Amino acid sequence: MSRRHEHRGAVVLLSGGMDSATTLAIALGESRPVHALTFLYGQRHHREVRSARALARHYHLRSHEVVRLPVAGLLPSALTDPHRRLPTARAGRGRIPATYVPARNTVLLALALGYAEARGLDRIYVGANAIDYSGYPDCRPEYFRAFERLAALATRDGVEEEWRPKIVTPLLRKSKADIVRLGETLGVPWALTWACYAGGRRPCGRCDACLLRAKGFAEARVRDPLTPATARP
Amino acid sequence: MSRRHEHRGAVVLLSGGMDSATTLAIALGESRPVHALTFLYGQRHHREVRSARALARHYHLRSHEVVRLPVAGLLPSALTDPHRRLPTARAGRGRIPATYVPARNTVLLALALGYAEARGLDRIYVGANAIDYSGYPDCRPEYFRAFERLAALATRDGVEEEWRPKIVTPLLRKSKADIVRLGETLGVPWALTWACYAGGRRPCGRCDACLLRAKGFAEARVRDPLTPATARP
Repeated sequence: MSRRHEHRGAVVLLSGGMDSATTLAIALGESRPVHALTFLYGQRHHREVRSARALARHYHLRSHEVVRLPVAGLLPSALTDPHRRLPTARAGRGRIPATYVPARNTVLLALALGYAEARGLDRIYVGANAIDYSGYPDCRPEYFRAFERLAALATRDGVEEEWRPKIVTPLLRKSKADIVRLGETLGVPWALTWACYAGGRRPCGRCDACLLRAKGFAEARVRDPLTPATARP
Repeated sequence: MSRRHEHRGAVVLLSGGMDSATTLAIALGESRPVHALTFLYGQRHHREVRSARALARHYHLRSHEVVRLPVAGLLPSALTDPHRRLPTARAGRGRIPATYVPARNTVLLALALGYAEARGLDRIYVGANAIDYSGYPDCRPEYFRAFERLAALATRDGVEEEWRPKIVTPLLRKSKADIVRLGETLGVPWALTWACYAGGRRPCGRCDACLLRAKGFAEARVRDPLTPATARP
């Protein structure tokens, strides 16, 4: 299904979490070459970046760029501000949690779009999720469709040549348990991935990201190698 | 026309050029407070940033942030790569010049969108120009309309509260001469602005940006204070 048109390679937004790791595994099955981009935008910790680097090595990617964006002051969030408390329980539906970073996905997709255009890659893979998501507006399916429409106008497509980038979101309508099951079939190395917002040596087990991850593994009846045996139900 | 709705302030993308300076003057007549953002994305020189700082001081802006984005490697262009030659004559219609930075406006607008959302500002002013422009795809009117549609989906509008950012492009359909005439009526301090891609102590007079600026001033029959008297026609 992925080779109907002449296909010129992909870039994957690789945060180092389980969703982006699964998305990377999917991209590698559909596209060659695969490049990855990891952005440091002032997250509280760099634990995820270590995971991203480990995943890039594991999969022998063509290239993996880690880019530091000094935008924490511009785009304030509990995720980037050490003085704000992280939420310890999931926000209710219809509320945006404190970990929301304003316009984050638009910033990261825009950079991936420029990277893809400069290299003639025609797919941008993003591991966004609209089912068990954390209430972020820029994870909605209609958001990604709007970005794809923008991308066609933002770039040289239609001016100089035919180059129409696709935004590929293979996990958009999957539950965390679906993602765990899919990742298992693809052999995703879960031990290399990271979810916890707190970013200590071990996952905190209490933040939104830890709770979502634990729920996914529990429902899929898969053991999470990052969870200590005593903490499992 | 600009005060139909409750209006909560603006952010202006301020490069330091004559278009963004004129746009800033327009924003100050329509919106309060006005914030400005200047991005360093690996341009060959910082001369423009000095102009942006001087303009922000001149207009006593509420705030002006200069943000360095280390993305020259991601988004290659003759504008950011010292090893590539700058174009010395205008590219023909239908060709994108070497100074095009892939997805630049999408990256800068995305950052301005996040900045605006975090501060509840509902207008983003951009001095883009689709008439005497340099052939960049992301200066087309339909591009900005698509970004505005994206912005409504990318942010908390419709999830938590009504906050719908407008992308304001007052110069989009004006010629350079129109811009010079408009700037004159608004008292834009041309001597503080900068156009030249080369970025020496004086404008080079040969690059696309210098030629466009000279054409605008000549057609408007206004003296450009940056041009030495001997170089004028």
